[in-house]
Amino acid sequence: MTTAEIPAPPARRARRSRSERWPEIIGAATDVFAEKGYNVASLHDIANRLGMLKGSLYHYIDSKEDLLFHIIRAAHDELYETVAGLAHGPGNAFQRLEMVIFGHLDFVCGNLQRTRVFLHELRSVPLARRRELLGSRHPYQTLLRDLIAEAKAEGLARPEINPHIAALTLLGSLNWAYRWYSTSGEASPAQISRNVADLTLHSLALPGATLTPFPESPEIPESPRSTI
Amino acid sequence: MTTAEIPAPPARRARRSRSERWPEIIGAATDVFAEKGYNVASLHDIANRLGMLKGSLYHYIDSKEDLLFHIIRAAHDELYETVAGLAHGPGNAFQRLEMVIFGHLDFVCGNLQRTRVFLHELRSVPLARRRELLGSRHPYQTLLRDLIAEAKAEGLARPEINPHIAALTLLGSLNWAYRWYSTSGEASPAQISRNVADLTLHSLALPGATLTPFPESPEIPESPRSTI
Repeated sequence: MTTAEIPAPPARRARRSRSERWPEIIGAATDVFAEKGYNVASLHDIANRLGMLKGSLYHYIDSKEDLLFHIIRAAHDELYETVAGLAHGPGNAFQRLEMVIFGHLDFVCGNLQRTRVFLHELRSVPLARRRELLGSRHPYQTLLRDLIAEAKAEGLARPEINPHIAALTLLGSLNWAYRWYSTSGEASPAQISRNVADLTLHSLALPGATLTPFPESPEIPESPRSTI
Repeated sequence: MTTAEIPAPPARRARRSRSERWPEIIGAATDVFAEKGYNVASLHDIANRLGMLKGSLYHYIDSKEDLLFHIIRAAHDELYETVAGLAHGPGNAFQRLEMVIFGHLDFVCGNLQRTRVFLHELRSVPLARRRELLGSRHPYQTLLRDLIAEAKAEGLARPEINPHIAALTLLGSLNWAYRWYSTSGEASPAQISRNVADLTLHSLALPGATLTPFPESPEIPESPRSTI
């Protein structure tokens, strides 16, 4: 009987490796933080959602704060890297801004819970770790502002535009989708992006600028909702 | 010795009436909810901030939930009433939209903590009371959408604009100021409003529409900040 023929021991509930378990743990923590708020959520809640004991969860993680930091860092880096690639890609500043709008809204609409945790709980990350994440400046905001300044330099945007305020105005429109976009709504992320890109480019453009023709979109009467 | 001459008893720490105390209590609760989050904040924290005992606080209020509901209802009603007055005032739809933008940003910039509590904690209000507040529709959002639809009907806005998505896009821009406006920043609420109104009207307007001339605003380089 060769080694290969020795029957395997009966399957045991072996502890799975951190890298195997990590995506599930982060997913469960994201949902729990988004639903209950970080401060109220406990590791017990997260373990429950995973069907494991809190003691077992400590095999994979160090602390609740660590989980939050990982969620926020991953969301920030994923959005930033996607959008920075688009902002520095081919095309003039308006074409790149349009791509950025599509990329940002695609991220938000596809990651509603992660976006909520990022936007509501960033303040719960201790200052030193927040600095580690964002640096002394806010790279994402700077990226939008620079793109709008480029559009002015390229003669596409009106000279009186203030790139800083215009960037923050756009950022609000883009991020706000986390509150009203619904996967069961009538508007797809692509339809929303097309509308927001059209509004944004028209808001910035010099009179008489040639913008990509915008087809009339179907009326979307009821579904997207937002309070206040 | 007439009644008037009887010396007053020494001043005692008389319990002040609810209506006297109420604004302070609401102010303290707003700050505590904004800083700690509603779920973590306790009546003990609020009493501490007021320099009273938790037991005395119960003389004025019924519950923590009641405080939250009052804060949220007052913020909603105050903003809605101001803005509804502007939306139905004199002028064409673009002029009224401009007034609405000024009114909304003035409220947000002047009420950062209340706006934060409203936006972050509305979900903490039990559903039945939330319905009492907002009804089955969202009156504020509907107001913006109707104004944009009117601008189309008046031949000011482009026919391809989707009023619903345009309203949500604008709402995001307006509300987002609670995250980046700073009273110590270089931009005043009026400067911010002028920029946002200019961007919004240009985003909607038919090509060749005559918009109020917009003076070039001073560059506002560093202060207004927002994450992601």
